[in-house]
Amino acid sequence: MRRWWRTGATLVVGAGLGASANRLLSDGGLREKEQGAGPLSRFPVIPVPGVPTVEASELQVSPGNSGAVMKYGFPSLANVKTRESYVTSYDPRTRTASWVIERLNPASLSGQSNRKYCEFKEDDSVHIFHRATNADYKGSGFDRGHLAAAGNHKWSQKAMEDTFYLSNVAPQNPHLNQNTWNNLEKLCRSLTKRYLNVYVCTGPLYLPRQEADGKFYVRYQVIGQNHVAVPTHFFKVLILEQGDGRGVELRSYVLPNEPISEQVPLERFLVPIETIERASGLLFVPNIMKRTSGVYAISER
Amino acid sequence: MRRWWRTGATLVVGAGLGASANRLLSDGGLREKEQGAGPLSRFPVIPVPGVPTVEASELQVSPGNSGAVMKYGFPSLANVKTRESYVTSYDPRTRTASWVIERLNPASLSGQSNRKYCEFKEDDSVHIFHRATNADYKGSGFDRGHLAAAGNHKWSQKAMEDTFYLSNVAPQNPHLNQNTWNNLEKLCRSLTKRYLNVYVCTGPLYLPRQEADGKFYVRYQVIGQNHVAVPTHFFKVLILEQGDGRGVELRSYVLPNEPISEQVPLERFLVPIETIERASGLLFVPNIMKRTSGVYAISER
Repeated sequence: MRRWWRTGATLVVGAGLGASANRLLSDGGLREKEQGAGPLSRFPVIPVPGVPTVEASELQVSPGNSGAVMKYGFPSLANVKTRESYVTSYDPRTRTASWVIERLNPASLSGQSNRKYCEFKEDDSVHIFHRATNADYKGSGFDRGHLAAAGNHKWSQKAMEDTFYLSNVAPQNPHLNQNTWNNLEKLCRSLTKRYLNVYVCTGPLYLPRQEADGKFYVRYQVIGQNHVAVPTHFFKVLILEQGDGRGVELRSYVLPNEPISEQVPLERFLVPIETIERASGLLFVPNIMKRTSGVYAISER
Repeated sequence: MRRWWRTGATLVVGAGLGASANRLLSDGGLREKEQGAGPLSRFPVIPVPGVPTVEASELQVSPGNSGAVMKYGFPSLANVKTRESYVTSYDPRTRTASWVIERLNPASLSGQSNRKYCEFKEDDSVHIFHRATNADYKGSGFDRGHLAAAGNHKWSQKAMEDTFYLSNVAPQNPHLNQNTWNNLEKLCRSLTKRYLNVYVCTGPLYLPRQEADGKFYVRYQVIGQNHVAVPTHFFKVLILEQGDGRGVELRSYVLPNEPISEQVPLERFLVPIETIERASGLLFVPNIMKRTSGVYAISER
């Protein structure tokens, strides 16, 4: 617990993850010693012959480039849907996605698509009992925050439009959406200059906090007639594929769903991937390890 | 909204479901008029030639009688597991099941199995990040409440033991577990005298409530190092299969996870099935309708 506090990461993820983080650090002790790295570097840095060529993923996805999008595996297998620009898993209880994965590279970022022709729309592939509507957001005080970002898919108008399904959206604090979150999206795009492909997995978190009685509680607002869940936090897991056969790098961020000053550097929101895996119920590392043995966690600040 | 209040059901499901229930009742208006039934009877009562014989379910499940258990479909398709006595869908985020389905009949209720040989145990088919342990429950003030009840599976010691996996368990108020919830389990068993088969689907709910600021919030405790979610409510959906070709009857209950006087009749906890479908993110009726067109909702009090 002491070491966790020392990293300052509680600023980001709240007291509720303290216990998990504590265990995380004790699990990680051996590996740290082996590699002599800082407390947030969870993975051995192993030079590997190279990233395997693209294979069919565990699940059959179709059509378009979704097989490629899912190269590093599925964080979960519930209600998986393939769209032009992303693959997603829908959570019918919260009325938003559990995760959305996109693949960014210079080709996906260039094109003539324009968001002025896009409108937020209900996802009618979701049963009406479990579907968010525009009316749910109206007057709620929350933005319709993209999970897969519109600006990542200039390559195709259809791909950009697909990011406007409300199943790819979650209620997001407007200040966060328009400032620090936007900066994080820009960072993802800028990383395409340094990496062969940038896989971005985005999703909501509902993190517990300790209350006055000393117990831990998950508490989140729900909006509209359909009770769309307002996440307490959002995560982005970046799988950065190197072009020179040095494997992949991982960066994982957790941001609270509240206003964040743009003065705070994005590096402050880096967390160990296990923090997200434990809190979200998803798994990233076991899938990635099947595809490459060269995984390096970038989480120094 | 007025009619919903009049039924007294808010006693059970809390203010948070008001909006859903309201829509529910307006959706149901036509059907009510057609059949002239009370506001809680959602389904047409149609005499039908008979329930189809057992078919393979949508998903391949194996082995034992799980195909039969799932005759009326899967409420969701995430992390489905088959055990000797039940089929279940695990929610790795809450560290408990989304639902568990059993099939009860006189044969499953008779036998020599004894719970004194059973012990609660971790489900090591669940990743360690997402698994509940006995230590999580210790000192929490909550019972390890069975979802599929041990007493339903006297037919096989293995079947009874399988109900002791912590993935078939949720933190339950001890008074509820030992009194009214136990009575509901007994009621399920007693119904096997009147029906060919009694399919029981049990699961947790995390229902929103209106707070002082007028907004709706979901709030639930989490216990132990692994943050096992404490449901605010539990549901049981009973699919009662008639032997004489008159189709199936549905009974759906929601009980708050708190002490309930045994003086309150169980009928007070009957709710429309859609209430559970909306709140849980699951679907029952579309699956059932594929198997029989004779569905009658028993929800009068």
